Amino acid sequence: MKHVYSGKTKEVYELEDGNYLLQFKDDVTGENGEFDPGANAVGLTMAGAGKAGLRLTKFFFERLQENEIPTHYLEADIEAQTMKVVPATVFGQGLEVICRFRAAGSFLRRYGKYAADGQQLDAFVEVTLKDDERQDPPISRDALDMLGILTKTEYDTLKKLTQQIAKIVKEELAKKNMELYDIKLEFGRSQNGEILLIDEISGGNMRAYTQGRYIEPLELEKNMLQ
Amino acid sequence: MKHVYSGKTKEVYELEDGNYLLQFKDDVTGENGEFDPGANAVGLTMAGAGKAGLRLTKFFFERLQENEIPTHYLEADIEAQTMKVVPATVFGQGLEVICRFRAAGSFLRRYGKYAADGQQLDAFVEVTLKDDERQDPPISRDALDMLGILTKTEYDTLKKLTQQIAKIVKEELAKKNMELYDIKLEFGRSQNGEILLIDEISGGNMRAYTQGRYIEPLELEKNMLQ
Repeated sequence: MKHVYSGKTKEVYELEDGNYLLQFKDDVTGENGEFDPGANAVGLTMAGAGKAGLRLTKFFFERLQENEIPTHYLEADIEAQTMKVVPATVFGQGLEVICRFRAAGSFLRRYGKYAADGQQLDAFVEVTLKDDERQDPPISRDALDMLGILTKTEYDTLKKLTQQIAKIVKEELAKKNMELYDIKLEFGRSQNGEILLIDEISGGNMRAYTQGRYIEPLELEKNMLQ
Repeated sequence: MKHVYSGKTKEVYELEDGNYLLQFKDDVTGENGEFDPGANAVGLTMAGAGKAGLRLTKFFFERLQENEIPTHYLEADIEAQTMKVVPATVFGQGLEVICRFRAAGSFLRRYGKYAADGQQLDAFVEVTLKDDERQDPPISRDALDMLGILTKTEYDTLKKLTQQIAKIVKEELAKKNMELYDIKLEFGRSQNGEILLIDEISGGNMRAYTQGRYIEPLELEKNMLQ
């Protein structure tokens, strides 16, 4: 197999059969040693983060498969910290798709004039560009279409899938007495043009609370998998 | 008449007949002594700016009336630097609606990864919140609806009106050999709920170029009205 990409939290390898292998690292995004799912830098390394993230990702991708949501997932090897996936290309140079059930993070930083911390939001979906230099700017359906990143039909599919996936994750968390505030997803196009959920779904992709208390990613993963 | 509001570039008075009077000042927005239509601060004072801005506003609002575009305009008194308008309330705490024919300014600051300086854009419309503290963040149709600022139907009306108005302004500038790159508009609701163009349309609301050279607001106004 061939190493093709080194991401913030993963190494990516191409396999001989045309599929890809994602190696989960123990690095998590954040700033000043504090975890922040919206941050662009690797903030800290936590022993066991890679394995716990992969275990939760496996759990959620298998739930999504049962619900017939298209994803890039094929199989996971927890001990090796690897996940095998089908090839997919990202939109433009990469998008993040966020679904929000309560106001937090960058939503408040932008819309704090109109929204209170923790205010209920109606499975609100927004798309941001992966662009560290420009602080991941939000981008509209019209702009994505105009700039050739995503057609309007693809946007509508992406939005619908995002809400379906977020609802499934929210329900799974609720079974463990945790409330999902927001979740960040990534999508790609498969070789036949189908839109697939890609990347991972771990504690590092979401914000969850229990009785008003924020739950760290590793604690969230522990709660979910015990 | 009663003074009701002091804006960056205007004073606002309520008249006895229920209408309002806008007094144009000689202040223009910008930073470090340079004009910038997207800036939130008054950058400089230019003698004659108020009168020239009002003359151009009168010119455009009368063109829009002829084209049956609903606006708040009633009449203008150039010598007194005042414009009489019908009452209208802004959406939320105020929105700016931008129509772009070429990439410049905040569009490039956000989407420079995908767009080149001066690249043609297809009468692209975007809405930003008037919020100096949060640098006027862009906001989507879904978010405007969710936060109770604008319904989706109102958004669609606003977008359509914006493109119609921008096209008229673009055509008028083209007659004087100037090319409109982008324009920033404000809208409000009339007392019967109709969406009206409000505020002004002067050099300070738009970016125009001639043969690749940027045209300052006062020069633009002079070109248009001579």
